[in-house]
Parts: sequence; C-alpha cells; structure tokens
Amino acid sequence: MPGKPAISLLSASVAKALDGELMSTGAFSVDQLMELAGLSVSQVVYREYPSSSHAKVLVCCGPGNNGGDGLVAARHLWQYGYQPTVYYPKPSSPDLYKRLCKQLEDLDIPIHTTHTSDLFHQLLKQSNLIVDSLFGFSFKGPVREPFGEILSAIVDSKLHVVSVDAPSSWEIDEGPQKEGPLKNFNPNVLISLTAPKPCCNFYKGKHYLGGRFVSKAIKEKYHLQLPPYPGMDQIVDITDQPLATV
Amino acid sequence: MPGKPAISLLSASVAKALDGELMSTGAFSVDQLMELAGLSVSQVVYREYPSSSHAKVLVCCGPGNNGGDGLVAARHLWQYGYQPTVYYPKPSSPDLYKRLCKQLEDLDIPIHTTHTSDLFHQLLKQSNLIVDSLFGFSFKGPVREPFGEILSAIVDSKLHVVSVDAPSSWEIDEGPQKEGPLKNFNPNVLISLTAPKPCCNFYKGKHYLGGRFVSKAIKEKYHLQLPPYPGMDQIVDITDQPLATV
Repeated sequence: MPGKPAISLLSASVAKALDGELMSTGAFSVDQLMELAGLSVSQVVYREYPSSSHAKVLVCCGPGNNGGDGLVAARHLWQYGYQPTVYYPKPSSPDLYKRLCKQLEDLDIPIHTTHTSDLFHQLLKQSNLIVDSLFGFSFKGPVREPFGEILSAIVDSKLHVVSVDAPSSWEIDEGPQKEGPLKNFNPNVLISLTAPKPCCNFYKGKHYLGGRFVSKAIKEKYHLQLPPYPGMDQIVDITDQPLATV
Repeated sequence: MPGKPAISLLSASVAKALDGELMSTGAFSVDQLMELAGLSVSQVVYREYPSSSHAKVLVCCGPGNNGGDGLVAARHLWQYGYQPTVYYPKPSSPDLYKRLCKQLEDLDIPIHTTHTSDLFHQLLKQSNLIVDSLFGFSFKGPVREPFGEILSAIVDSKLHVVSVDAPSSWEIDEGPQKEGPLKNFNPNVLISLTAPKPCCNFYKGKHYLGGRFVSKAIKEKYHLQLPPYPGMDQIVDITDQPLATV
C-alpha cells in the first residue's frame, strides 16, 4: 500500500508571495482570511483541549497578522464556553485590529495591552492553556522584547501551548533557536495555516493544518500538495504525515 | 421537567436594526459576518444532504446580502466536495460581491448572471438540490421578476430546497404568500441567521440556526433568548423548538 503523498512545505518567501496572491488575484479580504484562520485555531483548541479541562486560555497575540488570528480565535473560544484572556502588548494600529478588539470587549474578554513581567506571570498562574499567536511566517529573528521575556515565561510555566502557524521564535526556514532560553521551546500542538513551513521538520507534537481556502488556481500555480480535509471540517490532523523537502 | 425556553423572533425592523448594530457598535465587517453566515449555510447543507447524494447544488443568489451568503456557501460547498453552480441574475455591484464571485471563478464554479427561462430550467434538470439565498430579512413583496419566475420553477421542480434566513417570497413578519403560484412554497430546510423571524411560525420543516457571532452586549440590549450551540458547531438544530411570539 503506497504511503500518503508528502505535504508541501512553504518557505518564508513563498508563504509571503502566496499570502499576497490570495488577497490580490485571489480577491480575498484580510477580514475573511483572518476569520477563517482564527476559526480553525479555535477548533484545534476545542479538539485537543475541551473547555471543561482547559477553560482558562491565555491568548498571546503578536503585532502582526498572526496576532489577529489569535484575536479571532479568542472570540470563537468564548462562544464555545472558554474563558479567554488576551495578552496583546504591541497592539496593531490598523482599523481591523481595533475592530477585532472591540468584538472581544463586547464579550467582556480581558485584553492586556501593556506588558509588565509581574502581570504576565500572574496571568500565567491563572491560566491552564496558552495560545501562541505571537509570530507567524513573516517572523525573522532575533526575538525582540517584550516577546523574548514572554516566551521564556511561557516555557518556564510548563503550560501546554498551541502555536499558530509556527512556534514563535522558530526561524520559518530553519527551525528552533540554536541557543538561549528558547532553545528547547516545543509547543504541544501546532496548527499550520495554508501549508506547513520548513521549520515543521523539527516539530514533534500534535500537528494540524487549517486555512481551507486555497483555491484550485493557487494550488496549481504553487504545485501544492495538501491533504484532503474531512467532511466539512476546517482543520485536518496531519500529525506524523510525511512533509516534503524544500 | 420544564420545556426549553422559547427562542426569540426578530421582526423585519428589529432584524435590520440589529444587523446595523453588529456592524456599527459591534465593529464587525460585512466580510466577516457574511463569511460566518455562508459557512453556517454550507454546514447545514452538509449535515442534511451529504455530497455523495446531492452533489449538484444550484445556489440561487439574490441581489442583496442574502445572495452574498449564498456566494460564500457555494465556495465552502466546493471545498466539501460538492459541485455547486451559482445562479446570480442580478449581481450586486459593490466590490465585496465581485470579490466573492472571483473566489468562485478560481474554483471553476459556474456563475450565471443572465436569466433566461430555458437556461434556468436546464440547470434545474441538472441539479439535485437548491440553496435559496434569494431574499433575506429585508424582503418586502411583491416578488419582482425574474425572481417570481425563478421561485415558481423551483417549486415546480420538486427539488429539495434549503432556504437562507427566510423562505424567499415569504413576508418576514407575515409568512407565506396568501395567493398565487408561490402560495405553497415550503422549503425542506431553513437556516435562520442570528435569530428566527416571525414568519418561522408558519414554517414546518427542518430548522437550523446559524450566525454564532451575537455579542453578549447585543444579546442583552435586544433581550434575545437564543439556544446554546453544541461544542464548536456554527449551527444548531432548532426543529420543533418553541418560538416566542412577537
């Protein structure tokens, strides 16, 4: 019996080009893509950590689109019965992000936009799960503060972590940091969006794919080999499935 | 054992006010709301009509937001393995609708934007399911052409129909047409969005609710009694559940 075909990997530069193409020739709006991406993140959390055991989710959002996915996920998680708290120390200024925050405020979801070590440690103590939506495919090191401190505290907390698109601090094409306090950062769950990135070759946890919006045209143009999604699911479990080399 | 609490009904005017509020104080974009609404429509189709038996879905889209929900649903249905065809005889001009159509074109989904009786009858013959996203909560009769002819042909075809937000041609606050060829139009499945409308008191089929995006703030302001959604589902089956009087 032949094995499953290897899933394509998107290098940082190709991921950027493909993302741009979804919004230009693909005619998707950021609002649409972020809503679907964030929804798929929330579904992975629900699948892996039912709210009864991990209700208190600390959603850590970075300054870019990855952070926006986290803001959307937090809203859906609230709808599923979780009690999310959002940590968003470098809030993004475009209108979209302000609107996503307002949607959270209307659900009485706490949003912290100023970082202090004490506050973050206190929030970690009150949480039983982390969503890491700090950095996505456009990350390039070194990790700037306060995100280095935040990630170190997350590692020290031993809480389970669900990373969005890439484990934050990992170089997209290279993998984990080679030295320093984040050298051993390995999230328990990863949801790759659109397609996994080369750093996933170093990843050894539960692995999902989300972002069921790639058009036929784009799939053909980029010669993407992606796994089928089951039924009407927005996520597919790709743990231990073979990944292509780049 | 006490029964389930009656689900609130939204009159046409209150539905309009609430929709406006979601986008003003609620800070949602049309893109976001339409994506979530259309996704929930696609999930109802999948739940009730698995693609193996009803792959050829004719998605009939009207000129307003209800039509936009249909355009989004068609895209998701394609992702689930259906072969949707879109009938969109009065395409809406705002950029959002053009983008939703482009997203369908990139999947090679046929979109028909000119009505002729012959064409529509031919499409009905080739289809095994109808999504009726012609008119939503802002409908006010009489039904204008070509939509009267289209709806009559749908009724005559005896195909199963999934209606979006309201059975098209039904007065939102009053119910079915009292005379004429559409007097007996009763879809097999209805998905109400946000909350059911008063016309649902006349409806006797499978009934779902979608639009899991109502904020706590809006729910309180409008004294909305809505059923809980199960797990991470975007839809909830409310068939035979008691509806409030308005």
